[in-house]
Amino acid sequence: MVNKQYKRKIYLQDKPRGFAREEMLAHFKPRMETERIYSADALGRVTAEPIYATNSMPHYHASAMDGIAVIAEATYLAHEQNPIQLKRNEDFVYVDTGNEVPPPFNAVIMIEHVEEITEDVLEIIEPASPWQHIRPIGEDIVQEEMLFPQGHIVRPVDIGVLLASQSTMIDVIKKPVVTVIPTGNELITPYETASPGKLIEFNGTVISSFITEWGGEAILSPIVKDDPEKIKEALLHAANTSDVVVINAGSSAGSKDYTVHIIEELGEVFTHGVATRPGKPVIIGKINETIVIGIPGYPVSAYLALEWFVRPLVCKCLQIPEPSRPLLKVKLGRRIVSTMGAEDFVRMNIGYVNGEFIANPLTRAAGVTMSLVRADGLLVVSPDQLGFEQGDIVEVELLKPVEEIKSAIVFNGSHDLTIDLLTSQLKKNHVTSKIISSHVGSMAGIMAIKKGEAHIAGIHLLDPETKQYNVSYVQRFLSGADVVLYPFLKRTQGWFLPKGNPLQINHIKDIAKKQAHFVNRQKGAGTRILLDLLLKENEITPDQIKGYQREMFSHLSVAAEVKGNNNAVGLGIYPAAKAMGLDFIPLADENYDLLMTREFFESDQGKSLIEIIQSEQFQTQVNQIGGYSVIKNPEPIYF
Amino acid sequence: MVNKQYKRKIYLQDKPRGFAREEMLAHFKPRMETERIYSADALGRVTAEPIYATNSMPHYHASAMDGIAVIAEATYLAHEQNPIQLKRNEDFVYVDTGNEVPPPFNAVIMIEHVEEITEDVLEIIEPASPWQHIRPIGEDIVQEEMLFPQGHIVRPVDIGVLLASQSTMIDVIKKPVVTVIPTGNELITPYETASPGKLIEFNGTVISSFITEWGGEAILSPIVKDDPEKIKEALLHAANTSDVVVINAGSSAGSKDYTVHIIEELGEVFTHGVATRPGKPVIIGKINETIVIGIPGYPVSAYLALEWFVRPLVCKCLQIPEPSRPLLKVKLGRRIVSTMGAEDFVRMNIGYVNGEFIANPLTRAAGVTMSLVRADGLLVVSPDQLGFEQGDIVEVELLKPVEEIKSAIVFNGSHDLTIDLLTSQLKKNHVTSKIISSHVGSMAGIMAIKKGEAHIAGIHLLDPETKQYNVSYVQRFLSGADVVLYPFLKRTQGWFLPKGNPLQINHIKDIAKKQAHFVNRQKGAGTRILLDLLLKENEITPDQIKGYQREMFSHLSVAAEVKGNNNAVGLGIYPAAKAMGLDFIPLADENYDLLMTREFFESDQGKSLIEIIQSEQFQTQVNQIGGYSVIKNPEPIYF
Repeated sequence: MVNKQYKRKIYLQDKPRGFAREEMLAHFKPRMETERIYSADALGRVTAEPIYATNSMPHYHASAMDGIAVIAEATYLAHEQNPIQLKRNEDFVYVDTGNEVPPPFNAVIMIEHVEEITEDVLEIIEPASPWQHIRPIGEDIVQEEMLFPQGHIVRPVDIGVLLASQSTMIDVIKKPVVTVIPTGNELITPYETASPGKLIEFNGTVISSFITEWGGEAILSPIVKDDPEKIKEALLHAANTSDVVVINAGSSAGSKDYTVHIIEELGEVFTHGVATRPGKPVIIGKINETIVIGIPGYPVSAYLALEWFVRPLVCKCLQIPEPSRPLLKVKLGRRIVSTMGAEDFVRMNIGYVNGEFIANPLTRAAGVTMSLVRADGLLVVSPDQLGFEQGDIVEVELLKPVEEIKSAIVFNGSHDLTIDLLTSQLKKNHVTSKIISSHVGSMAGIMAIKKGEAHIAGIHLLDPETKQYNVSYVQRFLSGADVVLYPFLKRTQGWFLPKGNPLQINHIKDIAKKQAHFVNRQKGAGTRILLDLLLKENEITPDQIKGYQREMFSHLSVAAEVKGNNNAVGLGIYPAAKAMGLDFIPLADENYDLLMTREFFESDQGKSLIEIIQSEQFQTQVNQIGGYSVIKNPEPIYF
Repeated sequence: MVNKQYKRKIYLQDKPRGFAREEMLAHFKPRMETERIYSADALGRVTAEPIYATNSMPHYHASAMDGIAVIAEATYLAHEQNPIQLKRNEDFVYVDTGNEVPPPFNAVIMIEHVEEITEDVLEIIEPASPWQHIRPIGEDIVQEEMLFPQGHIVRPVDIGVLLASQSTMIDVIKKPVVTVIPTGNELITPYETASPGKLIEFNGTVISSFITEWGGEAILSPIVKDDPEKIKEALLHAANTSDVVVINAGSSAGSKDYTVHIIEELGEVFTHGVATRPGKPVIIGKINETIVIGIPGYPVSAYLALEWFVRPLVCKCLQIPEPSRPLLKVKLGRRIVSTMGAEDFVRMNIGYVNGEFIANPLTRAAGVTMSLVRADGLLVVSPDQLGFEQGDIVEVELLKPVEEIKSAIVFNGSHDLTIDLLTSQLKKNHVTSKIISSHVGSMAGIMAIKKGEAHIAGIHLLDPETKQYNVSYVQRFLSGADVVLYPFLKRTQGWFLPKGNPLQINHIKDIAKKQAHFVNRQKGAGTRILLDLLLKENEITPDQIKGYQREMFSHLSVAAEVKGNNNAVGLGIYPAAKAMGLDFIPLADENYDLLMTREFFESDQGKSLIEIIQSEQFQTQVNQIGGYSVIKNPEPIYF
């Protein structure tokens, strides 16, 4: 299985990222090829040479008005008491806006200021000053004037200047060709049927899209197997036809990570491993004049490494500066721990709550690939820092426009499928509004409101004493806070069971008795609290429940897990079971309410949200899902 | 010439821009058409519906390590003093990273932590905890999870999530179709030979490029003549095939501005004229369900009107918020006067000098179309403001990235062609460096240094007393300022004459005698000061020089003007005459020096600049132009 030729233990370096980058750039000699294209097609392209105007604009003395062209000096004595008569073709010619003002004429009088005496004789009562209402040759652009230096990125207005000066073709820098090679025996394309053990190859398309966005030309190679000969062949072909080659996965130091050896064999390797986290296992090398970058398979590492090492090469080819991300000062909602010696890149959520930007590292619940989609910013912790304390003000690189972050409604707390519907409906009604939700569970939602990190929290917490939902929890944990509890909906909790209920589970006691594999929720989740209550009532201890220790973060995750295992059972809301095609045994109806800061509740955004919740359309949609009923026009509870 | 049917006097409205916009948006009902495309091709497209994951990722319990899959509970007693032996296929199976962990196995032990006893028996000395090194089903993305709401603009990382969850096709909003109709009898395409009276049509291409950039699909119609029937036909066709129609020029109230009448005839007109300057003559109307916008021909007005009225329509179709420009607080270097009642849009240059952002309205010398290219920002003066005082701190909308503005070298003063070469060479050596030059003349250059508005000024000022260049001027006007005069080059001034010198001008006296048309430079320009000195020496008064009053702003402008007129003569530097193919009679060699703030001179950028000036390559380039010699390693003069 393991190729003997390459089976030797290698250790990753800890090269500082900046050093690896400079070393790479010093080795890279771009080919500097240019191509001649129509200026009209040059949007976003980069000029290869300074561009000089081919023609002046205007390219003749042009009238700026509809009127007559005259010799200014011949009009100097005109006055109300001394009208001057002008003869056509001798003393004047008619001109429209844009017409040439032919010599010897050197001024234009507007048609409104002219009195027609006969067809060929006009009268004026005001003198004209030389060059009035004339756009002289080159007023706007002078022939031979430098319009743009080299290295200029062409914008729409620039195309105007190019065409106006008849510079209809320009030399631009050829787009650098970047070939992307996905490798791995287990990879299939997204269009094939997925079976266990097969991983869907998507990094290649993402990498290609980034390269396109940066102005390069991406070539996505077919998937190459983990076979040194095949990889060698692909690398050699790519090196011969590209400025840069990106090879994805196989960049680590495992037994099947041949890439580093192959590059060494075909050319040279400068770097294997940079001192960052994530993103460490990067290879930087060279085959002939082509730089080859091996990047990790883990998506977050892959995209970071791409930005650190591939984007500078693309920009160097294009002779343009690397764009930098806008920075934003934020307050940390949580402590961030980092280890010395490695640069840390922490994906952050940023919420604008109570007039402050509060940033938190993304919760584990976000998942790896989704975390890149959800992240609002990136916090870079330098190698000599141990992290930051809660409440520290730090600068983060923004991954989304600050306006978007500022106008987003931060939703925290328990997961419910209707929140997605609410998000969509809100976006439909108010283009600029957006709900950013993290599913952290009811208790964590309450804490987020307390710490000023969220506008809304979805909660469903049953009080074992009062048998009431939510109210006592808010009283206990948010005493004195200015919050509002908005009764949102009733929903049905019940057992999730594989189709046909193979273990014949009908009661919580069956779970313990039949040693079913229970798929549990995280501590602090309302559903977890419900389960613990049920266990207590039935005098079952957690260690009698197989799987109790493992925690899932959403109803859908529980349902997905149950679906894959005939011995499994879970607890959750009906629509999640329905979405996954599971059997469902209803257990109880519970109250899922929205806890909001009073400030948000009374804001325009808050009001829009309530309006949508109470709309016919939204309620119909929710009822169609099943297992839900939205509470109509409830009385909000103030604390 | 004027079409009688439409010949009636109309007056433009002064409708507030915001009102015109809201009224237009209220009338616009986008067709909301969607199309299904491959996710891999969806970069920059906008989701039409919420998108739910088609499959989980991982879609099976996957090993996160190379090793063995075991039943965790069976390893609990493993210890260094109590090794446990595991039988293949019974107690464990081999798994590589990404392989399925089949039931009943629920943990993975890394291969490094396993001792091989026989081929089928392994030994472990540490317990495994349940689910260790396993990526469970849906860890990253859970099937049926909402990935994106509608109205989401797809980024590269989003494509990753879509493909990873096998959501390989998605519904996106169809790009709104915007037809652009250029109109005008005098228009020719940029590819035709320009002759007097013919204007090059370029607005259509610029407008199309803007629409492409905003996410629309632009259709550029051929040029339509100023003929009501032809315009009607083009408008009807466009209205039937587009979401929005932009008709360029003919939106004013002149005798040939038929457009407003035609739209009225075919549909309705909501607005004709908005209270802005520039940009006033805008038409907003509707033909069937298609919004028709008539925009002025003057490029600055056209592009502003496009942004005010066409971009909101494109964004409304796409259901995305309109992007806003970043704002920057700047200090005004000059007073800005505005009239009440109209919104003013002033194009600004912004320089970062002595740690401050200083903004000035673009000088007239920039020309209309070039002003859009050169502008760094836009200052909006609201209708109820009369303007701003010099020194006021105002917010401008940025047209260029702030980093670019911050790193730009602001060059002011006299125009010289070598400055373009310097700009290009600097850009080649230092990708992020840039020279922003305005040609305002030597004296204005000195003043810009004095007011802290520029880093460098190019000056060539002859002192009639001492017959020396520059030094006495700096002493007089910048006494006490911390500046450096860097001797840059000698260049030849002389007479610009049409090819063959038809008037036989050989001396300044010939100009007066032969009543040649003299093309003069602006007050404060070094060349103007030279001319005035020559006149004085020869006892000629300005009124003996025809054309003395009119002012051109650069050597090239003078040369372009002389080229077009056989009676003309000008004064300027040799390379400008050469570029335009003029005859040239040398008159004097003059010193053109670079005046710099000492801070800039001693900065890294300043040093790079001097390095380039003194480079073999630059000096060779300059000498090739002719009429120049760069001063080698001069002594800078400190004041």
